[in-house]
Amino acid sequence: MAVYTHLAAEDLAELIAAYDVGSLVSAKGIAEGVSNSNWLIETTGQDGAGSRFILTMYERRIEISDLPFFLDLLDHLAARGCPVPRTIHDRDGASYRLVDGKAVALIEFLPGVSVDRPTAAQARSVGEALARVHLASQDFTRTRPNALNVSTSHKTLEQCGESALAAIDPELPAYIAKAADLSRAWPSDLPHAICHTDLFPDNVLMLGDNVSALIDFYFACEDAMAYDLVVTHASWCFSGEGLSFSSDIGHALMSGYETVRPLSSREREALPILAQGGCLRFVSSRAEDWLNTPADALVARKDPMDFVRRLEFYAKAGANAFTDKT
Amino acid sequence: MAVYTHLAAEDLAELIAAYDVGSLVSAKGIAEGVSNSNWLIETTGQDGAGSRFILTMYERRIEISDLPFFLDLLDHLAARGCPVPRTIHDRDGASYRLVDGKAVALIEFLPGVSVDRPTAAQARSVGEALARVHLASQDFTRTRPNALNVSTSHKTLEQCGESALAAIDPELPAYIAKAADLSRAWPSDLPHAICHTDLFPDNVLMLGDNVSALIDFYFACEDAMAYDLVVTHASWCFSGEGLSFSSDIGHALMSGYETVRPLSSREREALPILAQGGCLRFVSSRAEDWLNTPADALVARKDPMDFVRRLEFYAKAGANAFTDKT
Repeated sequence: MAVYTHLAAEDLAELIAAYDVGSLVSAKGIAEGVSNSNWLIETTGQDGAGSRFILTMYERRIEISDLPFFLDLLDHLAARGCPVPRTIHDRDGASYRLVDGKAVALIEFLPGVSVDRPTAAQARSVGEALARVHLASQDFTRTRPNALNVSTSHKTLEQCGESALAAIDPELPAYIAKAADLSRAWPSDLPHAICHTDLFPDNVLMLGDNVSALIDFYFACEDAMAYDLVVTHASWCFSGEGLSFSSDIGHALMSGYETVRPLSSREREALPILAQGGCLRFVSSRAEDWLNTPADALVARKDPMDFVRRLEFYAKAGANAFTDKT
Repeated sequence: MAVYTHLAAEDLAELIAAYDVGSLVSAKGIAEGVSNSNWLIETTGQDGAGSRFILTMYERRIEISDLPFFLDLLDHLAARGCPVPRTIHDRDGASYRLVDGKAVALIEFLPGVSVDRPTAAQARSVGEALARVHLASQDFTRTRPNALNVSTSHKTLEQCGESALAAIDPELPAYIAKAADLSRAWPSDLPHAICHTDLFPDNVLMLGDNVSALIDFYFACEDAMAYDLVVTHASWCFSGEGLSFSSDIGHALMSGYETVRPLSSREREALPILAQGGCLRFVSSRAEDWLNTPADALVARKDPMDFVRRLEFYAKAGANAFTDKT
């Protein structure tokens, strides 16, 4: 989490002048995002009363050809009342510009803080917001495949190789076969939408018990809505060193979602396998990052075993993970 | 430049509740400061209209026992109309608090941007602001010695050792003797004040041509006012890879300063030696940092030779560095 590029205030002021937002008042590089640089920008605003924005510079992992999908999606969802920041278009109507060959976008600033220890009320609000995104995306005309689905996760683990995986943790190589099993059993007939697929607590801003913004849609893609829900479940319901599962949080999340969009029985049956596949996606990407990041790098590596533990929880609990309120 | 400590939003909210500033609305870790972590904080404000602050957590290099000096200085200068952020005191009147054993202070947010390519008008404004700080500090009752003066710079270079210095650059060992010469010739009879001693462009916020804030007073100490002025001169007047000197910027800075506080003839005579000593302070601290930072660390090392070049400029130009407008 860092600002990868230095942008001189003079160059920032010139960039801001391409938008109808007044002139630059303040710019602070913020420590958010792992694949882009971000600045919290203040301008005089159109009416002189001051406006704030997030300026994002896309540094790595994000293809410029994907930007119309990501940025139009924000505008589409915001226009339908979802709590997502809209993009600010420049005077020519463009949602992104190039600065020294890198794409930048000016995005609405929304208040709120990312919580570390969510309450059930907050999880309920997240469930509701996620369901609203799924429904609002139904008439979005762009699409993007999920590049991190269960079969690419399988391939990634295979490419890491058994011995490299074993060097991370002796249990890890077994998940190559597990990935193959999940891939074969993967349901293909569930209703789709545009999914966030990375809705961890740090990608949600809260004001009190309520979601004020869902952010960082840079893994968004078309996939099964129930899959997005269980990825969110896996990222919200476990806490502490021991990754203890909170059924209160899980129940509130599911119940919030179903208040807005009830699951079909087919979706409900699929939850345990979808949850294991969702965990596997993070096991595989974290294993790959682990092997590609030197042990002494200042960038913290995320332990893939955190999601192996979650996967095993879902494999063992089955449907109970989503129904029990104990 | 990073956020060294993770502070959970829940803990931040609890901290903010110790101040009479309303409740937490937003918190973004900002990429500023090398010896502390900083967050840009928004609260509902006392009147609900919203307020912004910088929350600083002191991580390294800063002694808690120095905090009353640094923080009271901000309040003292702000009360006398200097463009510096004031500190926010908690409900018990304290200017800093402890969080997990680390000191934190809530500081006024001031608008403005740090420029990379200052104009003469901006340099003039910096000179004026610096002189106002010197005058306003005259009745400040706390003091702090300059731990990075010419004789400690000499000692630091000696401790680095000739061979280590030569490994950085073959020219560098000669500056041990140069430091001894400067130390012997150092004037001790110049008028003192509380000095910023680190007023680089990134420690000044600008709105257009005018200084909106001087920030980062964590090297502030009592020293000769003319010394602070030449340190500022050395950090504002050189630009580009070749460190070309801008007499326009230099003249504007000096002239802005003297508009508020004219130099005595004794101070004016001392400028060339003070400037060389000011450069030496950065040569020595950068050499020390260079030797203590692994070459492959992600933290950028600053080249001590940048200030050797400036030192040589001042040695050669003498009084002309401060008088010529060519």
